[in-house]
Amino acid sequence: VSRVLVTGASGFVGRPLVRSLVQAGEEVHALTIPGVPMPDEDGVRWHEVDLLDRGRVAETIAELRPERLVHLAWYVAHGSYWSSPENARWVAASLDLLRAFAETEGRRAVLVGSCAEYEWGGEADLDEGDSALRPATLYGVCKDGLRRVAEAYAGQVGLELAWGRLFFLYGPHEQSARLVPAVIRALLAGEPVETSAGTQVRDFMHVEDVAAALAALLCSEVTGPVNIASGREVAIAEILDRIGELTDGVELIDRGARPLAPGEPQRIVADVRRLSREVGFEARISLADGLASTVEWWRERARAEAAG
Amino acid sequence: VSRVLVTGASGFVGRPLVRSLVQAGEEVHALTIPGVPMPDEDGVRWHEVDLLDRGRVAETIAELRPERLVHLAWYVAHGSYWSSPENARWVAASLDLLRAFAETEGRRAVLVGSCAEYEWGGEADLDEGDSALRPATLYGVCKDGLRRVAEAYAGQVGLELAWGRLFFLYGPHEQSARLVPAVIRALLAGEPVETSAGTQVRDFMHVEDVAAALAALLCSEVTGPVNIASGREVAIAEILDRIGELTDGVELIDRGARPLAPGEPQRIVADVRRLSREVGFEARISLADGLASTVEWWRERARAEAAG
Repeated sequence: VSRVLVTGASGFVGRPLVRSLVQAGEEVHALTIPGVPMPDEDGVRWHEVDLLDRGRVAETIAELRPERLVHLAWYVAHGSYWSSPENARWVAASLDLLRAFAETEGRRAVLVGSCAEYEWGGEADLDEGDSALRPATLYGVCKDGLRRVAEAYAGQVGLELAWGRLFFLYGPHEQSARLVPAVIRALLAGEPVETSAGTQVRDFMHVEDVAAALAALLCSEVTGPVNIASGREVAIAEILDRIGELTDGVELIDRGARPLAPGEPQRIVADVRRLSREVGFEARISLADGLASTVEWWRERARAEAAG
Repeated sequence: VSRVLVTGASGFVGRPLVRSLVQAGEEVHALTIPGVPMPDEDGVRWHEVDLLDRGRVAETIAELRPERLVHLAWYVAHGSYWSSPENARWVAASLDLLRAFAETEGRRAVLVGSCAEYEWGGEADLDEGDSALRPATLYGVCKDGLRRVAEAYAGQVGLELAWGRLFFLYGPHEQSARLVPAVIRALLAGEPVETSAGTQVRDFMHVEDVAAALAALLCSEVTGPVNIASGREVAIAEILDRIGELTDGVELIDRGARPLAPGEPQRIVADVRRLSREVGFEARISLADGLASTVEWWRERARAEAAG
């Protein structure tokens, strides 16, 4: 057992992560933004801390003295996060957090990056060793810049640091404006949906697998960047079809009604050999099962809303 | 005339920079660390501000509302700055400063990087477009990481940002433990000096030329990285010889008594075409003249110390 601090713990990835860390027997201290209701997760010790408030962060770390850290918190508002100036603020806040952690009893940290750090547009699976880092967005540049500085800093002060690069996620509690929830909710409500042709290929992983992979990475001794992804490619069209079937809404989807977003790359798929061989993690939830349970979760929620 | 904010203004580069900006007719607001005596420079408005104190920085910028910024402040303690964890703290502080500046009336910023951002060890002149960025030190990684994030941030918010990469500097007020002052002071005191063979080749620029180049860069519309250097190569041995002659201390130098530091690259010289063609700046102080006046400055200072 060690004291683990998780930031962004009430978010999409944070919830299943703190749950799996508690199940693994860790003493889990979860930070969440003041004013946001804390999820009801047994055994998690919640702390309301604004990570942009440096004094409060330093106090909290001095008090909790965590030995391990998973830093998920970032600016993630759907649509605007790719280009928001807030990204630069989170680079600074993340470095200050990491320093406060390393200066007390911190010995291992997992920070979270993104497939947006890689250059997009090629045909090959993206891998940690060979693929070019050439982020095209402010979000990607900020994650890449943070990783460069954080790794060099950690190397200097003797902190173990791993960097989990997330690809495409889906599952319960996803922001409702994002693709998968937006389509599910529309079809459950019997509303038509216009989409692109959906020929682009992506690497999707269920958020509970993402959380389990991050927990495995934290508990390993692997350092440096590790793709957190399934390694399986799926066309967006296939996801749309599957959701259509699960909701009896196939005929509500007008596929091809919208153009592909300009600059949208054809293929973004991870090479997951590091995750598999070095961390020893394999995704457990198939896309079919994951989408089925996700549709079920939104169906329950719609019912609860209708009843409430 | 515009309101220019200069950080690190009481330092080695800051002093001649604020002097030249005042001479150019700018309204110069100079920030300096609380408790350090402020240099006596006519026309400069000094403010004691700790850049690590975020609240104070935001207040100061809100009050002064500068339109242009030259950010020189960093952790620069001789010897330790290459690997100090403080480098990561300065990345965060610099991003927060830049954001506070951009969010008020800031429209153009010059930030300062280093030749340590480049990969060292090649034979070619280092240039902004083609040379690989592969910093080998925490200092270099932090400057490189800051540049990546700051440029992308500036591009997003419509701030003009130039990045001056400094090479090797010398001149009055240099930290006395560094090579040029250390040799000058020893020889002026009649003490023997042991050095390496001095075969390594570097690009040295007098600090007043560095300051003038940064002022020219600030007043230009050039954005992105610009080497701030002379483009002239000189062997360390030649600098030692020159100082020996100027101090009548040639015979006190035991050249070759020390090994070259491990990993010390043979050649670090800048390609200065961007500085020359786009910024329109040429170094004005020859190495012979610059070293002569620097020796004179240290001689005066030794006399004053002896008299005091």
